[in-house]
Amino acid sequence: MSKAYASMSREELLSLKDELDKEFQGYKEKGLKLDMSRGKPSIAQLNLSMGMMDVFHSESDLKCEDGTDCRNYGVLDGIPEAKRLLASIAEVNPDNIMIFGNSSLNVMYDTVARAYMFGLLGHTPWCKLDKVKFLCPAPGYDRHFKITETFGFEMITIPMHEDGPDMDMVEEYVNNDPEVKGIWCVPKYSNPQGYSYSDEVVKRFAALTPAAEDFRIFWDNAYSVHHLYEDRRDEILEILEECAKAGHPDMVFKFTSTSKISFPGSGVAAIATSDANMADIRKYMVVQTIGHDKLNQLRHVRFFRDRYGVEAQMRRHADILRPKFEMVEQTLEDELGGLEIGTWTKPLGGYFISFDALEGCAKAIVAKAKEAGVVMTGAGATFPYGIDPKDSNIRIAPSYPTVEELAVAAKLFALCVKLVSVEKILESK
Amino acid sequence: MSKAYASMSREELLSLKDELDKEFQGYKEKGLKLDMSRGKPSIAQLNLSMGMMDVFHSESDLKCEDGTDCRNYGVLDGIPEAKRLLASIAEVNPDNIMIFGNSSLNVMYDTVARAYMFGLLGHTPWCKLDKVKFLCPAPGYDRHFKITETFGFEMITIPMHEDGPDMDMVEEYVNNDPEVKGIWCVPKYSNPQGYSYSDEVVKRFAALTPAAEDFRIFWDNAYSVHHLYEDRRDEILEILEECAKAGHPDMVFKFTSTSKISFPGSGVAAIATSDANMADIRKYMVVQTIGHDKLNQLRHVRFFRDRYGVEAQMRRHADILRPKFEMVEQTLEDELGGLEIGTWTKPLGGYFISFDALEGCAKAIVAKAKEAGVVMTGAGATFPYGIDPKDSNIRIAPSYPTVEELAVAAKLFALCVKLVSVEKILESK
Repeated sequence: MSKAYASMSREELLSLKDELDKEFQGYKEKGLKLDMSRGKPSIAQLNLSMGMMDVFHSESDLKCEDGTDCRNYGVLDGIPEAKRLLASIAEVNPDNIMIFGNSSLNVMYDTVARAYMFGLLGHTPWCKLDKVKFLCPAPGYDRHFKITETFGFEMITIPMHEDGPDMDMVEEYVNNDPEVKGIWCVPKYSNPQGYSYSDEVVKRFAALTPAAEDFRIFWDNAYSVHHLYEDRRDEILEILEECAKAGHPDMVFKFTSTSKISFPGSGVAAIATSDANMADIRKYMVVQTIGHDKLNQLRHVRFFRDRYGVEAQMRRHADILRPKFEMVEQTLEDELGGLEIGTWTKPLGGYFISFDALEGCAKAIVAKAKEAGVVMTGAGATFPYGIDPKDSNIRIAPSYPTVEELAVAAKLFALCVKLVSVEKILESK
Repeated sequence: MSKAYASMSREELLSLKDELDKEFQGYKEKGLKLDMSRGKPSIAQLNLSMGMMDVFHSESDLKCEDGTDCRNYGVLDGIPEAKRLLASIAEVNPDNIMIFGNSSLNVMYDTVARAYMFGLLGHTPWCKLDKVKFLCPAPGYDRHFKITETFGFEMITIPMHEDGPDMDMVEEYVNNDPEVKGIWCVPKYSNPQGYSYSDEVVKRFAALTPAAEDFRIFWDNAYSVHHLYEDRRDEILEILEECAKAGHPDMVFKFTSTSKISFPGSGVAAIATSDANMADIRKYMVVQTIGHDKLNQLRHVRFFRDRYGVEAQMRRHADILRPKFEMVEQTLEDELGGLEIGTWTKPLGGYFISFDALEGCAKAIVAKAKEAGVVMTGAGATFPYGIDPKDSNIRIAPSYPTVEELAVAAKLFALCVKLVSVEKILESK
């Protein structure tokens, strides 16, 4: 068992620092160039979907099942078979799904934009209000927070627990403050912690009695089928159904996409929501576009066929991703176990590991890693406005590098954690 | 030479009406089901691009020329070769183009939305203004008008002449009224008249001195390469260059897409504009999306290669479209020539023929045609708010039906024009 840094003497720490500095120098000389910053699938994962390039050829019949020629204009919110496929991924009724373009982020932005410009279900457009507040469970997804920051909403940080956001706080805000119009959620294998909301948390969400009638839960189900293990999986309650049961059918927008199933940037995104919300969206969508890329929708259906096809594909993704997560987790354990200078999550799915360093160390660790050629997500990015009040959280994205590269990157990362932590502890000795 | 209806006696007209009624009855009994309502390419045209389905297969190298793997995340505003291809279609510098998704309409809507939500180049967001006015040359494109109607802008009709919008009126509004923030233009083979702006009109656009610094020309170059004839083509001055020369580089957003070159709904759309406007757009685009479908961009480049490939394809489109336009024009001439109950345009490109009936007859003609199974664009659609003050203009879209179907549909249309005109003239006798 390693000795906790905090219990070391100043002399021990100084000598340790010397050692670590030397080791770091060695890494620097390697001239590494590795990226653990974004949740990008690896080349091996992209190769899994190359069969999709063969499903169409110049003699293909490109009509969808209702006879629509997918090569021409038309079909506002998706061909029927694409709705079924995405509904099966989102675990909702195909009647309650609308298919969009290649990016669920774009769908979320547009959903906020519609509320801002035109209002939801006849309510005042958010752009006409003095103030709009959004709840942001953090650490969370930086691109969510960037949307609400750009719209000028006041973002309120909600602490994340292992079973989901702090629901006492969520209820307090949502049920009492009419300026609170929304909350960002990644309910399954959350970004970056990999936490999944407990049944109780989902039910408490569904049971919210918002002070604002146009309050909406932005439920980004990005990792619904993105398990790492066959035998240990998180499953969560279906939020549309729970909201309907609780008498709040219109309270949620659920987002999903095939970005990390087929090709990021060339997948299919969707929104699942109530009939009333869908009618509301369609009113503006019909002005915005004639329709999204139906050929790509059909391509996805012909390749994956159905939920079973998707699951088979996700097992192949998992086989590639699992060793990477395990490599990082094992390295952190080997290098940092017992030192009491950091904790990290061990998710069963999703794309990230969340690392919490000693307070005040995250920025320095990320800078240090960069100095030796390993790019991490910017420290603070997982909090609203990019400011982590404790400067502690670091998102690790192990998906893109190879296992061999990760072995090096994870060790270097641990070294940076040690170095910065030693310096931090020395300051107070 | 046929006799003008207006010069006929009441008796002649009544007997003519009997004849026409009988003829119409005959058509009704045929149970036609034809659609001349939208500018949809025909199946034969769609077949022209089926080779695009063969350019990728499961062993393809899907890196673009700068080494980016087009299957993964990244590249906000388009891969370099797609920028070059779309720039060649838009006749602009590839440095001044941004590639978007599948729909130029969506790009236009988003461009208006950004101005509405965030303002242009630091100016007040349009949603914070009491009033925003938009100039709408009419007859024009219904989907343009629908966007500005949805945003609640006051739309001001500008008469269209053969060489473009009434520039005296445009100058009067733009140069004096700071509430006028934009104008919709289809400068080449305009929708629905097929008119192209003269050099003088383009220069007068570029020379505008708007009262509103955030006034923008929305230049929808939808039909830039959509000629019907080899030897008779409209060409227009390049607006970005003209605006720059006139000292107003930021005054224009130019839109283009491959929708009617490859596949509508599965093409690639783009915006061309000044460096400053591009930087402004990027600020928000980076929040809205990680990037658009690069595989589809690459697919288009591999299929068309360059401007020459596009032009060859457009000649094949023209070979299919030309006989259809000529069939309609000939039928109208044969059936209506000399009757003085309608005039129509004879465009050299684009997707539409514009028909002007006697005042107060358009709605009735469209209704009559529908009664016999031929769907036209709704009368009034070519004007702001869907209201044609003279109830005279009808848009004819000859692209989708076969030549054989068109022969029938055009004859029926002419018959409906005659019938409604006779009734109209009888009213005043």
